[in-house]
Amino acid sequence: MSEEAKKQAVTFGNCLDEVRKSVPLVHNITNYVTVNDVANALLACGGSPIMSDEPKDVFDITTICGGLNINIGTLNERSIEAMMIAGTRARALDHVILLDPVGAGASALRTATAQNIVNTIHPDIIRGNISEIKTLALGSGTTKGVDADVADTVTEDNLDEMVSFVKAFSEKTGAVIAITGAIDLVSDDKTCFVIRNGRPEMSRITGTGCQLSSVATAYAVANPEHKVEAVAAAVCLMGLAGEIGWSRMQEGDGNSTYRNRIIDAIFNMDAKTLEEGAKYEIR
Amino acid sequence: MSEEAKKQAVTFGNCLDEVRKSVPLVHNITNYVTVNDVANALLACGGSPIMSDEPKDVFDITTICGGLNINIGTLNERSIEAMMIAGTRARALDHVILLDPVGAGASALRTATAQNIVNTIHPDIIRGNISEIKTLALGSGTTKGVDADVADTVTEDNLDEMVSFVKAFSEKTGAVIAITGAIDLVSDDKTCFVIRNGRPEMSRITGTGCQLSSVATAYAVANPEHKVEAVAAAVCLMGLAGEIGWSRMQEGDGNSTYRNRIIDAIFNMDAKTLEEGAKYEIR
Amino acid sequence: MSEEAKKQAVTFGNCLDEVRKSVPLVHNITNYVTVNDVANALLACGGSPIMSDEPKDVFDITTICGGLNINIGTLNERSIEAMMIAGTRARALDHVILLDPVGAGASALRTATAQNIVNTIHPDIIRGNISEIKTLALGSGTTKGVDADVADTVTEDNLDEMVSFVKAFSEKTGAVIAITGAIDLVSDDKTCFVIRNGRPEMSRITGTGCQLSSVATAYAVANPEHKVEAVAAAVCLMGLAGEIGWSRMQEGDGNSTYRNRIIDAIFNMDAKTLEEGAKYEIR
Repeated sequence: MSEEAKKQAVTFGNCLDEVRKSVPLVHNITNYVTVNDVANALLACGGSPIMSDEPKDVFDITTICGGLNINIGTLNERSIEAMMIAGTRARALDHVILLDPVGAGASALRTATAQNIVNTIHPDIIRGNISEIKTLALGSGTTKGVDADVADTVTEDNLDEMVSFVKAFSEKTGAVIAITGAIDLVSDDKTCFVIRNGRPEMSRITGTGCQLSSVATAYAVANPEHKVEAVAAAVCLMGLAGEIGWSRMQEGDGNSTYRNRIIDAIFNMDAKTLEEGAKYEIR
Repeated sequence: MSEEAKKQAVTFGNCLDEVRKSVPLVHNITNYVTVNDVANALLACGGSPIMSDEPKDVFDITTICGGLNINIGTLNERSIEAMMIAGTRARALDHVILLDPVGAGASALRTATAQNIVNTIHPDIIRGNISEIKTLALGSGTTKGVDADVADTVTEDNLDEMVSFVKAFSEKTGAVIAITGAIDLVSDDKTCFVIRNGRPEMSRITGTGCQLSSVATAYAVANPEHKVEAVAAAVCLMGLAGEIGWSRMQEGDGNSTYRNRIIDAIFNMDAKTLEEGAKYEIR
Repeated sequence: MSEEAKKQAVTFGNCLDEVRKSVPLVHNITNYVTVNDVANALLACGGSPIMSDEPKDVFDITTICGGLNINIGTLNERSIEAMMIAGTRARALDHVILLDPVGAGASALRTATAQNIVNTIHPDIIRGNISEIKTLALGSGTTKGVDADVADTVTEDNLDEMVSFVKAFSEKTGAVIAITGAIDLVSDDKTCFVIRNGRPEMSRITGTGCQLSSVATAYAVANPEHKVEAVAAAVCLMGLAGEIGWSRMQEGDGNSTYRNRIIDAIFNMDAKTLEEGAKYEIR
């Protein structure tokens, strides 16, 4: 089979199975708000988490991993230094690197840090909400805190425009771009997956985006030849887990129980369920 | 309607509805032990959380928020600096500021930091257990770690004395004071709510106090004309959520499930349930 | 009764009851990944948690506690300094000190820090996986991230050899050594408990080891005359809670729910259940 044919033959189910088979070790430099859920989501999907954000520790730690997930949600001077050291090392080793630019646009430090990581570390994947990605692509955004501004949304009406935007930003950065929201876009410079999995109630839980970033890193590590498909599979997985988790909610349950049920659904996901539940088109 | 009449017309149900309507954005500089539950409790009540404790980040972050929740539970030199920068900025913008003096009295650093925040930032609300509040008011306390000393309790026997104490401390600081325990007191210099919601089992979960502090901040942000009522509503909400959560416990459940059920109950709370379940008198 | 007789008379059920009776206050300098579960597990078992990792705070905090749990899972320069200050103070006060050398062998900083704590603070208990303990005992290991290398396992085949190893390491360090895995070993220089509680699914949750370290600290604080028995009781408790938690799992549940059910089972454990469920032999 040619390289091209092999690439096309990959399914989301294959991507999932590769993760469970290879148990990718992912180094996470992530925020302390959602870090426990990030670790459990990574374990649930079949990966293995390590956390370290001390500049003197991260060179060694990232060396033994397969991927690096950088999330700037509660960045500080020490962790920013650690991000640069780990990122430089992971780049040198050709590890998968994902950037989650939490709150880019909400503060000068977050915007500058995310931009600097894009420009010097060259992440393989950038995953954020539309406000964060616009901030990185256009130099400014209307980020409302760490959540996307409602004025900044991917809708059926602006979908063509947004697909062009995300492909152009992928071409410029060389990264797979994932914009998550009511409609998710996962794109390289040629192929854009438009994904309609998920539930609006997921935004009432902290950390589903952070969890997705770590899971997407694991998926890309386990499927190095199919990065865009792997990230799209992870985005469908997360949204589908949100749907399955919601279907198990009972009277009196709320966002805390929902959080557990989503991670549980990632834990129980198999290739067949993912294949059948994934809702996407390719543009 | 006169200002005074408008103020008296507010109900706890109104306070709740205002939070859900306005989705107050709250900047939390809080401890890493309970931060995830703080974020989910804030989302559950209808608010929106941001966490940031880097001195170079907090000026921008607090600027875009409506309120600031400062919790010294795992303070460090960096986060103390961030508390002062964010507090000064939030004060200048007339944002609601709440101080949760976790462990004041248990270490010299905690006592000094909390005192310094009271004296220089002038928080709108101070919420702690009786040992912490006594430490701030009297310059010394008998804090046993981060939990109130049993010798230091608000009881039916010393209630009159405690109501006078809390009103005097409110007058001195200009802040709404919330002392939480078996009996909760929420007071300004004139009006003290004596609240009898809650369950003793809540003390077997880490972080119900931290959650309450963030929720109370959101309530005060959304109800700027009625701060003492808003904080009292938040305290009743938290206690009532503890009661509702407990009523859903099943055989074999313990403190971890209870934690989820309390946040779930906050998520599902509506004005009518809060009004009917609130147990308080005004002194 | 002679000292020796009193020592032999202790049961795991006695150990549990002593914890619930005395509510030991434990100072935790631990990683931010699993810290919330550590606090809730400590509360569940009957202890009381305090977290502090600021060098200027830990002297006071550890002074008011009965035990110190040092976990290097997300160590940084500041927390390492705090570990040394708190450790030195706790040693001077003859508090129980436990070291959890998370990731020793995975980075030079982790290995050096753990070695330094062993050599200068002389912990009463060292609890880790086999790779971490081998790194400390032999100066090198094959740690794969923060999980034990599969090549490094306590099995029925190498059990005699491992029992000798753990007794020798206990004699060298003067500490009770706990190696946890499919088969757990808890040993001083003379007596080794070989424990067969637990479920393999526990490794799909982050933090069961960290929880155990804090619970074991509480058990040793409450049972100062019986440290090795107390730590063995804590290891059986954790494994048994994993078994009970698993028996309550329902269709669709996964690792996030399992996490809750384990802590719930610790919360509900009583002396009789622990005695009857503990599976161990003494070598």
